[in-house]
Amino acid sequence: METDIPLYKMLNNMSYEELEELAKEIRKYIYTVISNNSGHLASNLGIVELTLALYRVFDPFEDVIIWDTSHQSYVHKLLTGRWKEFKNIRKKEGISGYTNIFESSADKFGAGHAGTAIAATLGFFLSDKVKHRKRNIIAVVGDGALGCGMTLESLNQLNYQGANVKIVLNDNEMAISKNVGALSQLLNKFRVKKEYTETKKVLKSSLEDSQVGKDFENLLKKFRDALKYVVYSSPAAFFEDMGIKYYGPVEGHDIKKLEEYFNFMKDYDEGPIILHVLTKKGKGFEKIENAPVKYHGVSKKEDKISYSKIVGHTLASLKSFEFIAFTAAMSSGTGLDILQEVAPEKVVDLGITEASVVTTAAAVSLGGVLSIVDIYSTFMQRAFDSLIHDVALQNAPVLLLLDRAGLVGEDGPTHHGVFDISYSRLIPNVEIWAPLDAQDLADMIYTSVIQGLKKPRFIRFPRDGEKIDISEVIENLKIVDGEWRFLKKSDSDIYVLAVGTISQTVKKALSEYDLNIIGVRSVKPLDDFVMKTLKEKAKYILVFEEGSLKGGFNEEIYKLRDKHIFAFGIKDEFISHGTREEQLRECGLDVESIRENFEEIFNQLDIDDKILKRR
Amino acid sequence: METDIPLYKMLNNMSYEELEELAKEIRKYIYTVISNNSGHLASNLGIVELTLALYRVFDPFEDVIIWDTSHQSYVHKLLTGRWKEFKNIRKKEGISGYTNIFESSADKFGAGHAGTAIAATLGFFLSDKVKHRKRNIIAVVGDGALGCGMTLESLNQLNYQGANVKIVLNDNEMAISKNVGALSQLLNKFRVKKEYTETKKVLKSSLEDSQVGKDFENLLKKFRDALKYVVYSSPAAFFEDMGIKYYGPVEGHDIKKLEEYFNFMKDYDEGPIILHVLTKKGKGFEKIENAPVKYHGVSKKEDKISYSKIVGHTLASLKSFEFIAFTAAMSSGTGLDILQEVAPEKVVDLGITEASVVTTAAAVSLGGVLSIVDIYSTFMQRAFDSLIHDVALQNAPVLLLLDRAGLVGEDGPTHHGVFDISYSRLIPNVEIWAPLDAQDLADMIYTSVIQGLKKPRFIRFPRDGEKIDISEVIENLKIVDGEWRFLKKSDSDIYVLAVGTISQTVKKALSEYDLNIIGVRSVKPLDDFVMKTLKEKAKYILVFEEGSLKGGFNEEIYKLRDKHIFAFGIKDEFISHGTREEQLRECGLDVESIRENFEEIFNQLDIDDKILKRR
Repeated sequence: METDIPLYKMLNNMSYEELEELAKEIRKYIYTVISNNSGHLASNLGIVELTLALYRVFDPFEDVIIWDTSHQSYVHKLLTGRWKEFKNIRKKEGISGYTNIFESSADKFGAGHAGTAIAATLGFFLSDKVKHRKRNIIAVVGDGALGCGMTLESLNQLNYQGANVKIVLNDNEMAISKNVGALSQLLNKFRVKKEYTETKKVLKSSLEDSQVGKDFENLLKKFRDALKYVVYSSPAAFFEDMGIKYYGPVEGHDIKKLEEYFNFMKDYDEGPIILHVLTKKGKGFEKIENAPVKYHGVSKKEDKISYSKIVGHTLASLKSFEFIAFTAAMSSGTGLDILQEVAPEKVVDLGITEASVVTTAAAVSLGGVLSIVDIYSTFMQRAFDSLIHDVALQNAPVLLLLDRAGLVGEDGPTHHGVFDISYSRLIPNVEIWAPLDAQDLADMIYTSVIQGLKKPRFIRFPRDGEKIDISEVIENLKIVDGEWRFLKKSDSDIYVLAVGTISQTVKKALSEYDLNIIGVRSVKPLDDFVMKTLKEKAKYILVFEEGSLKGGFNEEIYKLRDKHIFAFGIKDEFISHGTREEQLRECGLDVESIRENFEEIFNQLDIDDKILKRR
Repeated sequence: METDIPLYKMLNNMSYEELEELAKEIRKYIYTVISNNSGHLASNLGIVELTLALYRVFDPFEDVIIWDTSHQSYVHKLLTGRWKEFKNIRKKEGISGYTNIFESSADKFGAGHAGTAIAATLGFFLSDKVKHRKRNIIAVVGDGALGCGMTLESLNQLNYQGANVKIVLNDNEMAISKNVGALSQLLNKFRVKKEYTETKKVLKSSLEDSQVGKDFENLLKKFRDALKYVVYSSPAAFFEDMGIKYYGPVEGHDIKKLEEYFNFMKDYDEGPIILHVLTKKGKGFEKIENAPVKYHGVSKKEDKISYSKIVGHTLASLKSFEFIAFTAAMSSGTGLDILQEVAPEKVVDLGITEASVVTTAAAVSLGGVLSIVDIYSTFMQRAFDSLIHDVALQNAPVLLLLDRAGLVGEDGPTHHGVFDISYSRLIPNVEIWAPLDAQDLADMIYTSVIQGLKKPRFIRFPRDGEKIDISEVIENLKIVDGEWRFLKKSDSDIYVLAVGTISQTVKKALSEYDLNIIGVRSVKPLDDFVMKTLKEKAKYILVFEEGSLKGGFNEEIYKLRDKHIFAFGIKDEFISHGTREEQLRECGLDVESIRENFEEIFNQLDIDDKILKRR
């Protein structure tokens, strides 16, 4: 895909004025493309100068530069030979919205989930050591990813492993949601301190020049050591306690200054080093600067109400009940911001720390308060052990809402929520529910809050929505259980099982045929009554699920013997980015494919034509 | 199980002399029982005084005391009504070797994996807030668990969430393996500083009393702030940067002193507080104090060579090849210490940070050096997302050795490695191998190192071993692939499939019958040739796997239609502690159960007697 000459090679021949011009052009280009294609706008606008300065000093092909999470790697892509391709970013067959090692050799490590970059730099350091290879290894990490367990684990290892890696802390003051935790507060404390360099100089010289009282004489050395804490304030102490040399903060939109610091970092080879850079999300576009969360990710407007919002509204309507809803830095994405508005004390954001969130929620439930964890299916993978070890094994009645369960569209394979049926079904002692539509989702949540839980319960729903009147949904809230629902009943021996909302598509595709369509609302436990019916009456069973077929619901159905079974879902591979519609088609989960596959199967099987005739 | 009066209630009526006597008695009792039953010896001997002092101040039933990992909770158990029951610790029907909420209401949160306690304290704090409940919430955390991502994530949240929780840092200088990472070094630096309290007093008063030079006047306040860094040295800065008040270190075998500190902690309610306690593993038994790793866990001697050791010896024999082997604080448990002895530079221990280990290993492999990750199956659950997001999606050729895959015996449900077939089979782009015996395990590792990998490859093997001559194994190393092996061939239409080493048991149980026995050596991909044979020739298929049936290998086989299929493995529930033999029997995976179940099935099915006749 590298159709043009990498722009970064020209950076060193440009004057600072020309670079400023380029920065403007890049901003305009990103704004135009992303407004059209969807994607991460604010963070990429904020990192233009940082990337330009970085690539005047380091070589993105020769050195190893790892973009944590990599939602902020658009400028990197533009500079490393993907200017033309950028027009099609996040589109099917176009370049990815994240770094991808199969897309360019400048993308040294792919990402999508936060907090992996520093662990990866350590890996590259170790392999370079074995290979006696000398290159610069750099991680660009946002302040939101700083509080991730993996980031902290790996920071703790760098110096101990003797890893001369370089970290650029891109501190744009807020992760997707408002940044939380002590480290974030520390950075913030430091951020407001503008005169730090000057103060440092004055302090140092005054200390060195002055007559020091007798009592203080023997303490001088100690005070000198202490100075760095006084001057650098807390962040330095934190990082330097980890054995990482800290510099900064430095203004992140001043190319020349950044370049000086990057050059200093390049020459520094006494161990790991971190440079704290202050950038502004949405830089250059005032309306974005002022509302960076809104512009964090730009999606196309839909007239549907998203399932995430259904969750938010439902919980908001239940605010008088006792519960705590947890988010991992995604209060807006999960719709919990709607609850937050009416009952801020009920929403707890623990930052991008999914494993901790789930374990904390387990304890809340064991403490007698219903806990709700609302995390995207793909991110819940990070809490897999907590689900087993802390929730299921202790039968902690936690309500686990898996948003974006299924294909997610433009974000692609790092973000698909296609594994959750498989990874939750194997856990003893849990229930897995899959609502058929918006009302069903709201009812399932309502039921869980009103009745409480006897076991941990997952509720999974896709990145989709419905054109509905939310107030009607709330008015019609009712107690439900997990029984499967006949969406179409017939005397035919053909039974079609569809898990969750994909049943809507299946119904559209197949309702004209003479067969049974069943909406599967509980993957675990199975519906005994329907399973018995299937055993007795079904000859052909078709299974549809928006999830991986390996380990999926279909494998429960395959246990029924003497049936002809056909399963449709996500094959054993990673699905590239594109629109959700394109991906559903690719996986045979759109109306047309479902119909075509159905007809093909039954033609092959040479079944009585009457069965197939449309009503 | 609380058959006796909780001993802790008497602690406050005892003199310090009597407490010392009790401590001795407890040590003797633990030593006797654990030497016999197996278990964690050194850490429990080290925490006797700490627990006694803790329970003079706090109430284990009224307050919430959470033991991180909880391998060190024996004294807690003895004091909270399980003195008699302790004799049967880790035995079937006896009490668990870890805290267990179903065992006693003094066990507020169960554990087994490290690093969950602080997340749990946060959860109890949040639920108490909702319930307007006032009690002390305390986590006892070892220095090894301090570097876990979840610990660091949660430390970062405590102050931000306003959580008045109390942390006792039980610093016994070494986790299971030598402790690694910057934090560990920091604690160590502090440990050697004995005069800290006195120094602090002197410094403080001298600063407050002295005439301060004019230049310094306006700096006084800043220096005061700085003092804590000078005096407390680094650990304080680290914790206090996290917003956690730090006290210590305090000698951990002085009950009176500990009690004073615990009382201070109890009264402290200005936010989270951490007390750094120095204890000595194995305290009271000189030979254990001097070799704490050896006595970390006491197992019964076996004349078998463990599969872990097979791994170590095989890798040691391959030390001239290029690779890095990673451990997560388990170099001894995984057998990597054998490699470490002959090639220390090839073993990298990143502490209890499984997710980071796997991501770092992915980068090492992408850097062109074969990386090997050797982690227990149960702990690999913590790296689930890294396996998908960093390894499989990038097709990073990492060799993933899953030790203790299957039932583990006395450690019980937190430690069983029964989910790995299910959680790895759902990941696209990976191979999953299961050696049939020691030589096969060695050959698979040999093959992976010699040939390199085209895809990420898991190799799973149980907590078991064989009576073999290791030098013969090494001499006979050969290149293998993952094809399934006929262990017994017949013209019968009965096919028995057994995954990995359980095939040895199956062969013992069923070789007298007229049937086919196949050792399944690759769960992914399947063996096409054998699958075709099954399709064509099998009428009855029996599947055996030492892993969860939900999502397991058997579900691949169920996809074969028109066969009678019977699957044996671990049902959809958590299996309690006991011996591995007892657990295998409970799951129908011992010789006798296999034979009985086989006969029962075929009697029911009314199959031709000839098929069943023994040869």
